Amino acid sequence: MINYNELARCAKTASFKMATLNEDIRNNALQAIAKALQDNREAIFRENAEDMSKAEAEHLALPIINRLKFDEHKLQDILSGIESLLTLPDPLFKKLLERELDEGLTLVKTTCPIGVIGVIFESRPDALIQISTLCIKSGNCSILKGGSEAVRTNKILFETIKAAGLSAGLPENFITLVETRAGIDELIKCHESIDLLIPRGSNAFVQYIMANSKIPVMGHADGICHIYVDKAADFEKAASIIADAKAQYVAACNTVETLLVHQQIAKEFLPVLQKALKAKQVLIKGCKDTQKIIACEPADEEDFKTEYLDYIISVKLVNTIEEAIEHINRYGSHHTDCIITEDAAAAEQFMSFVDSAGVYQNCSTRFADGFRYGFGAEVGISTSKLHARGPVGLEGLVTYKYKLFGNGHIVSDYAEGKKSFHFKDK
Amino acid sequence: MINYNELARCAKTASFKMATLNEDIRNNALQAIAKALQDNREAIFRENAEDMSKAEAEHLALPIINRLKFDEHKLQDILSGIESLLTLPDPLFKKLLERELDEGLTLVKTTCPIGVIGVIFESRPDALIQISTLCIKSGNCSILKGGSEAVRTNKILFETIKAAGLSAGLPENFITLVETRAGIDELIKCHESIDLLIPRGSNAFVQYIMANSKIPVMGHADGICHIYVDKAADFEKAASIIADAKAQYVAACNTVETLLVHQQIAKEFLPVLQKALKAKQVLIKGCKDTQKIIACEPADEEDFKTEYLDYIISVKLVNTIEEAIEHINRYGSHHTDCIITEDAAAAEQFMSFVDSAGVYQNCSTRFADGFRYGFGAEVGISTSKLHARGPVGLEGLVTYKYKLFGNGHIVSDYAEGKKSFHFKDK
Repeated sequence: MINYNELARCAKTASFKMATLNEDIRNNALQAIAKALQDNREAIFRENAEDMSKAEAEHLALPIINRLKFDEHKLQDILSGIESLLTLPDPLFKKLLERELDEGLTLVKTTCPIGVIGVIFESRPDALIQISTLCIKSGNCSILKGGSEAVRTNKILFETIKAAGLSAGLPENFITLVETRAGIDELIKCHESIDLLIPRGSNAFVQYIMANSKIPVMGHADGICHIYVDKAADFEKAASIIADAKAQYVAACNTVETLLVHQQIAKEFLPVLQKALKAKQVLIKGCKDTQKIIACEPADEEDFKTEYLDYIISVKLVNTIEEAIEHINRYGSHHTDCIITEDAAAAEQFMSFVDSAGVYQNCSTRFADGFRYGFGAEVGISTSKLHARGPVGLEGLVTYKYKLFGNGHIVSDYAEGKKSFHFKDK
Repeated sequence: MINYNELARCAKTASFKMATLNEDIRNNALQAIAKALQDNREAIFRENAEDMSKAEAEHLALPIINRLKFDEHKLQDILSGIESLLTLPDPLFKKLLERELDEGLTLVKTTCPIGVIGVIFESRPDALIQISTLCIKSGNCSILKGGSEAVRTNKILFETIKAAGLSAGLPENFITLVETRAGIDELIKCHESIDLLIPRGSNAFVQYIMANSKIPVMGHADGICHIYVDKAADFEKAASIIADAKAQYVAACNTVETLLVHQQIAKEFLPVLQKALKAKQVLIKGCKDTQKIIACEPADEEDFKTEYLDYIISVKLVNTIEEAIEHINRYGSHHTDCIITEDAAAAEQFMSFVDSAGVYQNCSTRFADGFRYGFGAEVGISTSKLHARGPVGLEGLVTYKYKLFGNGHIVSDYAEGKKSFHFKDK
C-alpha cells in the first residue's frame, strides 16, 4: 500500500530546500533534463510504442491514441520548450516592494515558490515534462499523476527527469510520480502538504477535482466562449473571425460555442455567416428568430449551456448589446468573449461589462493562449478571479512573502506614540 | 422566507454596473457616506445603546460587549479611515501590461473589481463600515452578515450607508445586509453569484466557512506565530520583543504563541525571559528541557498546536536552527514568524526556509498588519498562498482582465505561418 500522505509530506519537505535554490542550479537542472531526454530517446520511444500497441489492442478512441504518441516530433517540441524556459527571467527572489517603515525597520516583499504542486493530467505524456520543468524553473516540487494509458511512457520520462534533476543538485523528492487511479482520490485529500492542484482534462474531470478537494485548484472546467456580432459589425471580418474561432481547432477551450447576433443586422448577416460556416462543415443550431431567416437545426436553453467541442455552433438573436452582455454573463464560463463591431463605444461597453478573463474586439477567441500572449511558457488557463486569471505564465506558480528586518523594534512604542512610521519606499 | 440566491443574484447584477463607475463617483459616494454617518450619529448611538443594554441584560462576555460598543471615539476612527481611503490611488483601471502582439493586435491587461464580496463578521459593527467602504473604493458589491448581538446597530449603519451611496449614484443593491444566522449557511452556497468570502471571527468560525463553501475564502483561521531565539541573539532585544509580541495585545492573530530557544544559550537566556514575562503576567509552559532550567508549567505536543490568545506562552528548546525551522513549518499557521539573531546568515536561512507570509528578524510579530506596513487600508490578513498573502490592502479586492483589440485577426494566419507575432511592449 502506498502512503500518499507520506509521499506528499516528503514533497513538502523537499519544497523548502527547492525554494532556496538559485537560478543557476534550477537552469542547470533544466539543461541536464533536456540532455537526458535526448540521450534516452530510443528507450523512451520504445516504452511509448508499448503503450501505443496496448492502446490500439484495447481499441481506445483515436484522439486518445493520437495524444498518447511521443515521437521525435514531440521530443523536439519539448526540447525547444525547455530551451525557451531557460531564457525566461527568474520568477523568484524578485523584490516587489522595499519600504523603510521607520529608522532601521525595513519591509521587503519578495517572490517565492508556492511549494508543492499536484498535477493531474489525462493521456498526453508531453504534459508531464512541460509541467515538471515549469515547476523546476519556478522552484516548486511537483507530484504528477498521468493517464493510465501512458503508464510506461510516463514512468520512463519521470525516471529520466528525476535522475537528471538529482544529478544537477535538485533535492530528493523534487518530483514524484503517482501511478494508480486510486492515487487521485488520496492526493486531493493531502491539503496539508499540497499547495495547489492543476488538473488538465475534461470538464467532468476538473469539476470532480474542484468539488472534492480543499486544495486550491488552478484551471478551468469548461470554456463556453461567445462572439457577439454588433449592429455596427463589419460582416466580412465577422464571418472570417467566427469561422476561425469555431473551426481552427474545435477541441480547444477557447473555441466559440455561441453566437449572439444583433436583430437589426440578422437578415443581412446570417446568410453570409451560413456560407462561411458551411465551408468549414459547421452545423448551425439557431433560436426561433434565427430559424426564420436561415434554415438550421433548432437551439434551446440547453444549447446555450453546452460546450460542444465539435463542429457545431448555437446562434441567438438579441435586441440590444445589453441583452448580449447579460446572456454572456449568465451562460458563459468567464473565459473569453468577443464583440465584432466598428463602434468603439460599443466595444468599450462590452469590454467593461462582460465579466470574463478575456474580452476581445474584432479578433478570434482562439488567441486566448499564453504563447500567443507572449508569456513564453504556459501553466494553463484560469477562469478563477483570484490569483492568476486567463492564460497563466510562470508567475502563476509563484507567491510572495514579506521579510521584515528590525533591530529590536516593538509595537508598544508605536501604539504609545513614542515612535511613528515614516514609510519611505526604496 | 428570504431567497438568498435571489439576493446574491441581484448583487451580482449590480456588480457589473459597479465595475464601470469611475473614481470620482466612488470617491463621492465615500464622502456622502462619511457625511451621512456624522449626520445620523445620534440615531446610531441610540440604536447601539439598545444593543448594549440587551447584551448586558443577557450577560454576554465583557470582550463581546466591548467590541459591540459604537461611540463617538469609534465614529471618529471610522471617519478618519474613510478620509484615508479617499487619498489612496484608485486600484481600478490600471494598465498592468500593454503589448502589441502583431500589427493592429493589442493586448491590454487591466485591473478590475472581483465582483461580489461576502463578508461575515462577529460583533464589531465598525467592521461593517470598514469593509463596505473598502468594497466601494475597489468597485465591488458587498453582502454583509454581522453578529446577532449588534443587530440594531448594523441595521442603522447599513441603512445610512445604502441611502448615502444610492444618492451619490451607486447602483441599487451595491450593498446588502443579511440579518439572520441561517443566512450564513445559505449565503455560502451562492458560489454562482458570490466571488469571494471574507470571514472575520474565531478560528472555529473561519474553519467552518472554509470547509462548507465552494467560494474562495480570504483570511486566516488561526495565528500560531513563533519567535526563535538563536544562539547569536541579543538577550535584551529578545526579551523586549517577546514581551511585546505576547502581551501588547493578546487577542490578536499576530501575537506569539510559541518560543523556540537554542539549547546553547538557554541556561543564560531563560531566566532573563522569565523576568520579562513575569512583569507582563505571562504564564510560561515549558518543554522538559525548559523545566530543568526555570520553574514553569509543563508544555506538551498539544500546546504547540494551540493559539492561546491569552497571557500564556509555550517554550521549547531546540538543538539547531534547522530544528526550529522544522517545528515552525510543522506546527505554525504560516502567518508570521521571527528569528532573534545578530547573525545575518542565520537570519537569511530562517527567512528562506520558513514557509510563512511574514518572516521577521529582530522585531515584534505584532507588526504584521496592513496599517503598519503602510497600506493605508486593510482588508485582512491572509495565510493562503494564492492571490493575496499576509496583510492585504485594497489590491486584494481587485483582479484583472485581458482586453484584446484586433482588426479581423484570426489564429489560422499564425498557425499556417502567414503571419507571426512580434510582441512589442508599450
